[in-house]
Amino acid sequence: VGDTRTAAALIIGNELLSGKVTDCNLVCLARTLRGVGVRLLRVVMVPDSRDVIAAEVRELSARHDLVFTSGGVGPTHDDLTVDAVADAFGVPVVCSPELERLLRDHFRDRLNAVHLRFARVPAGARLVGQAGLPWPTAVMANVWLLPGVPQIFSAQMACVAAELAGGPTFCSLALCTTLDEGVIKPWLDEVVAAHPDVEVGSYPRWHHPRYRTKVTFDGTDAAAIERARSALLARLPAEALVEADE
Amino acid sequence: VGDTRTAAALIIGNELLSGKVTDCNLVCLARTLRGVGVRLLRVVMVPDSRDVIAAEVRELSARHDLVFTSGGVGPTHDDLTVDAVADAFGVPVVCSPELERLLRDHFRDRLNAVHLRFARVPAGARLVGQAGLPWPTAVMANVWLLPGVPQIFSAQMACVAAELAGGPTFCSLALCTTLDEGVIKPWLDEVVAAHPDVEVGSYPRWHHPRYRTKVTFDGTDAAAIERARSALLARLPAEALVEADE
Repeated sequence: VGDTRTAAALIIGNELLSGKVTDCNLVCLARTLRGVGVRLLRVVMVPDSRDVIAAEVRELSARHDLVFTSGGVGPTHDDLTVDAVADAFGVPVVCSPELERLLRDHFRDRLNAVHLRFARVPAGARLVGQAGLPWPTAVMANVWLLPGVPQIFSAQMACVAAELAGGPTFCSLALCTTLDEGVIKPWLDEVVAAHPDVEVGSYPRWHHPRYRTKVTFDGTDAAAIERARSALLARLPAEALVEADE
Repeated sequence: VGDTRTAAALIIGNELLSGKVTDCNLVCLARTLRGVGVRLLRVVMVPDSRDVIAAEVRELSARHDLVFTSGGVGPTHDDLTVDAVADAFGVPVVCSPELERLLRDHFRDRLNAVHLRFARVPAGARLVGQAGLPWPTAVMANVWLLPGVPQIFSAQMACVAAELAGGPTFCSLALCTTLDEGVIKPWLDEVVAAHPDVEVGSYPRWHHPRYRTKVTFDGTDAAAIERARSALLARLPAEALVEADE
């Protein structure tokens, strides 16, 4: 897993930190990245503060191959992501001629100064779009500026997947057992020690009707994952196994 | 809002970053904290890595009044939170006699070495429990070590709320309008400028049947919030207002 690309997400919005709104963009991004073999290593959620966002973008951008921001790209006073990303890279905010043309085509006579704010991008940003999507995403260096509105965020995942496809991808296997973690831990420890290139996860399930523990095996080498799963299977009593449900 | 207590959350688990599991503990914690007037300022999600967790706990603990970790407190190889929190504070992990007694009472003859791992706490941690809850939460300095299993996490919120109750609490008002952000932005900017102690949020709704924008007013001063909302109401045409739905 040493050569997989890494990513971080920055989820922006007071409404998320106050619990008024439940974020649903993260899981959508996480699955998209996983599907193209990018390892999401860190997620940070911060308020609508230009300085906080800028500092976070600077750090996440330096430490990861890719960064995805969610939210704060609208036209109002609490939309600070474009300015903050520009701050992070020490560039001004400029009006993108390409975005301005899209706005003029869409709004025509109704176009006003507020609408034009949607054309603001950090200087040097490129636009990543795709046929069928109404609006491109601005990408500044390695930072994708995604909108917080879930319907638009999820629509943009097609662009993200298309742009990042082509690297090694992840494989995943699981097994479910009626035994609890307390019982399987010694066997689990042996398998973990013997398969250092496989990421083994153990998840207790409370009140599940059929099993008590789900064990997952993840990595980029399908054969190694299968070997690790087989090694644990060989240690578990057959009657303690149930079909995985996912 | 200067004297409200601040908090950060550290959500731990590879299964969340891979998108296999959707976190539901954050919103539960966010609402609990909001209910007792604690301002959640930052959320960080990290993998099951002892060093990463320890570094994060150290930083979050130093910069916030309260920190809440979610996950990594079980008995298996991927449960590293107790060790990492101990590392963060430079203390060893010890066996809590109180937790050991609870485990002996529960498991009796079946008690084994794996079960006893649930008694491990950072040296110096206190236990916060409550009648009706089966298990106390370890709190090391200002760091609460909460379990990742959602049913247990949410049950522990009663303890968190009881322990933190008594400070100034937040008030919140909203209004919904059929106008889009592009139209109301000038009025919104005036209201934001005139009411610096009120946190004003503007949220576009895509495809909502009755309105296009929801504006929220938040803070600790109920009268100030009401004044800010009234100021925006006075600027909006009456026919553009609809009843708030939440």
